[in-house]
Amino acid sequence: MRIERVTGQLSLRRTIETGTEEQRRAVRQIIDDVRKHGDAALKTYTEKFDQVTLDSLRVTEAEMKAAYEAMAEDLLCFIREAAANIRDYHARQKRESWMMTKEDGTILGQKLTPLDAVGLYVPGGTAAYPSSVLMNVIPAQVAGVKRIVIVSPPNKHGTLPAGVLVAANELGVKEIYKVGGAQAIAALAYGTETIQPVDKIFGPGNIYVALAKREVFGQVAIDMIAGPSEIVVLADETAKANEVAADLLSQAEHDERASSILVTPSMKFALEVASEVEKQLETLPRKEIAAASLEQYGAIYVTETLEEAVEVVNELAPEHLEVITAEPTSLLGQIRHAGAIFLGRFSSEPVGDYFAGPNHVLPTNGTARFSSGLSVDEFVKKSSIILYSEQALQEHGTKITALARLEGLEAHARAVEERLKSRT
Amino acid sequence: MRIERVTGQLSLRRTIETGTEEQRRAVRQIIDDVRKHGDAALKTYTEKFDQVTLDSLRVTEAEMKAAYEAMAEDLLCFIREAAANIRDYHARQKRESWMMTKEDGTILGQKLTPLDAVGLYVPGGTAAYPSSVLMNVIPAQVAGVKRIVIVSPPNKHGTLPAGVLVAANELGVKEIYKVGGAQAIAALAYGTETIQPVDKIFGPGNIYVALAKREVFGQVAIDMIAGPSEIVVLADETAKANEVAADLLSQAEHDERASSILVTPSMKFALEVASEVEKQLETLPRKEIAAASLEQYGAIYVTETLEEAVEVVNELAPEHLEVITAEPTSLLGQIRHAGAIFLGRFSSEPVGDYFAGPNHVLPTNGTARFSSGLSVDEFVKKSSIILYSEQALQEHGTKITALARLEGLEAHARAVEERLKSRT
Repeated sequence: MRIERVTGQLSLRRTIETGTEEQRRAVRQIIDDVRKHGDAALKTYTEKFDQVTLDSLRVTEAEMKAAYEAMAEDLLCFIREAAANIRDYHARQKRESWMMTKEDGTILGQKLTPLDAVGLYVPGGTAAYPSSVLMNVIPAQVAGVKRIVIVSPPNKHGTLPAGVLVAANELGVKEIYKVGGAQAIAALAYGTETIQPVDKIFGPGNIYVALAKREVFGQVAIDMIAGPSEIVVLADETAKANEVAADLLSQAEHDERASSILVTPSMKFALEVASEVEKQLETLPRKEIAAASLEQYGAIYVTETLEEAVEVVNELAPEHLEVITAEPTSLLGQIRHAGAIFLGRFSSEPVGDYFAGPNHVLPTNGTARFSSGLSVDEFVKKSSIILYSEQALQEHGTKITALARLEGLEAHARAVEERLKSRT
Repeated sequence: MRIERVTGQLSLRRTIETGTEEQRRAVRQIIDDVRKHGDAALKTYTEKFDQVTLDSLRVTEAEMKAAYEAMAEDLLCFIREAAANIRDYHARQKRESWMMTKEDGTILGQKLTPLDAVGLYVPGGTAAYPSSVLMNVIPAQVAGVKRIVIVSPPNKHGTLPAGVLVAANELGVKEIYKVGGAQAIAALAYGTETIQPVDKIFGPGNIYVALAKREVFGQVAIDMIAGPSEIVVLADETAKANEVAADLLSQAEHDERASSILVTPSMKFALEVASEVEKQLETLPRKEIAAASLEQYGAIYVTETLEEAVEVVNELAPEHLEVITAEPTSLLGQIRHAGAIFLGRFSSEPVGDYFAGPNHVLPTNGTARFSSGLSVDEFVKKSSIILYSEQALQEHGTKITALARLEGLEAHARAVEERLKSRT
């Protein structure tokens, strides 16, 4: 791995992928088609892109039964235990409606209401992760969302991965459709004969899925435009080089564009980790992907001090941050930007990917500067409540009319005055 | 106003404005120019679109002084009182970091951190509202955001409206730039020599501003794509027709595309309101705008029952909802979709626009189905915290490795195993 002494400012901020003109046009065409032709368009695009002709878009009970038969018993138990942990953590994010009262009779408040219906996109191919199902569906359920829909592109046999199906069924999700790409996003946003539209779309996908989400944003809500995954490890000489190297590799194997970075004040430790990475890389099944990722987006940054290392971490604003130093918790207050923070040597990042409880859907590509991981909040709406009494309006009415007239909005002022004049 | 008996399903959902190909291209061109040429591009576009040549982009102390001189003393007091109410309400939205601990040493939690820097776009012309400054800046301050930047297009004299400047200064905002349009959004997202980039952009604007926000989304965060404003009044015969009519007009005067709708189970009341609207419309200064808005997007829907009326409200998912019935609070539980809910006849909508305390930046165009008004939450990031003890990893490590291998991610499994094997 490349080792660099940090001199200037660093940034993970790679330019965001907004696609080519041609890709954008293709996506708009697909969305238009699905709006016009509904299910027929979905089936045509599935034939074209997934090379399979489907009788039914919806996953059947027989397919679900086959998925359970393909799943080892102990794995099923682990999925259930992970689901329980995830549910326990997210339950603590749930908030209540609240109100405040004033002596003049005014009541102000905030009412929380779950979304009616949400859709989850689960990518196909090698990135079809049961854990994504758990991480997206459980917060929706904790929030109280009644209708949860999963869409995912079918393989060439017209089915979905057993792990995805089992995870969905364990959570009680009944609406699962075998459709992917921009056409799936269009169906979720606008609806077809088979798929009723939803209010918000979650989940990652390829460039076409991302462009489609961007395109329907406004018609429905979307979660975020996810980029490739990244990890930053902040470590000093008390860390174990073999463990840190393994964590860097666990990120690098995701995707050639994934980014694995070590920030350390110790050149000695940097060299040890670099050597361990080379060693461990050799025996990895996804060696080519990991090597390409490390080559392009991997780095070891060596700083003068630990404080400087923390500042580098804040500049990078990583999706995942591991802090493996003599006193990791003492640094927590200084860390401003990170999607998830793993403290100490036993908190290896995969612990959070699968099992611990916090969400693994996290802001990528430096967007932890301004955004957060998925939480129950994203499945809930807040409505403000205003109840003014006659007394309150009498007391404050003329202030309100003055402010309205300052903005040139006469009818706003008169709406208040209609009440003040007709005191019945 | 058009009166209709409700038969089928209703929807406010007008197609979202995504602009023409030409507008999109123009916006991308402006953004590219600002990225390449910085301040020079900002000045060129300001000359082109705002017909003024600026010496300095930044508002000076002399301009601020002039704004205070133009502002009536009592208005200044009302702005201060409104600001105090808004601050009081939003302070109750603020959340704390939290953690949970387990006996095996595991600590999980959620750390809340304010954004570093945010930008607020304040539209120019007739829609330059001091109240928008209060409603956007105060939640940012409550959240703890350190750097708050305002951008707004200058008028032909190269200045900004006194109300906007005074409101900003009252809140202690020091960075105010005279630049508008897509070029202002580009400057906030990418930075120029004078304007450092921010992490999130707030505030409404015309189609070019909206397209620019859509374009830079991902590079920075954005609040929402705001559409024209709307009100729905849910009223029975206990309401006063003159008051309801005035409220409908207060929305209609905003914009020709604004939407004002009454939903009532009483045809008698519907007719009274329609007649009152005609009468009050005559004397309004913004009569043409209000009339056009009512003609195109105004309606009175008459239902059979009050329950049916509530369902119509949920279908419309309005930005503002007034409930003026015999027992308004009894309906609160049934209302699922509304940005802000005004209860009872003294809670006229302008009370919330200016003074009561809840935010007036609300989801428009039916998007209250899936989104919320502006709140302190939008200025805060959540980072999850995971601390696993050695004991916890020993106990659960093999479950995590099994789940990782189910997803084909060998390096994830090995990262955990590196800890399990080297028990030192």
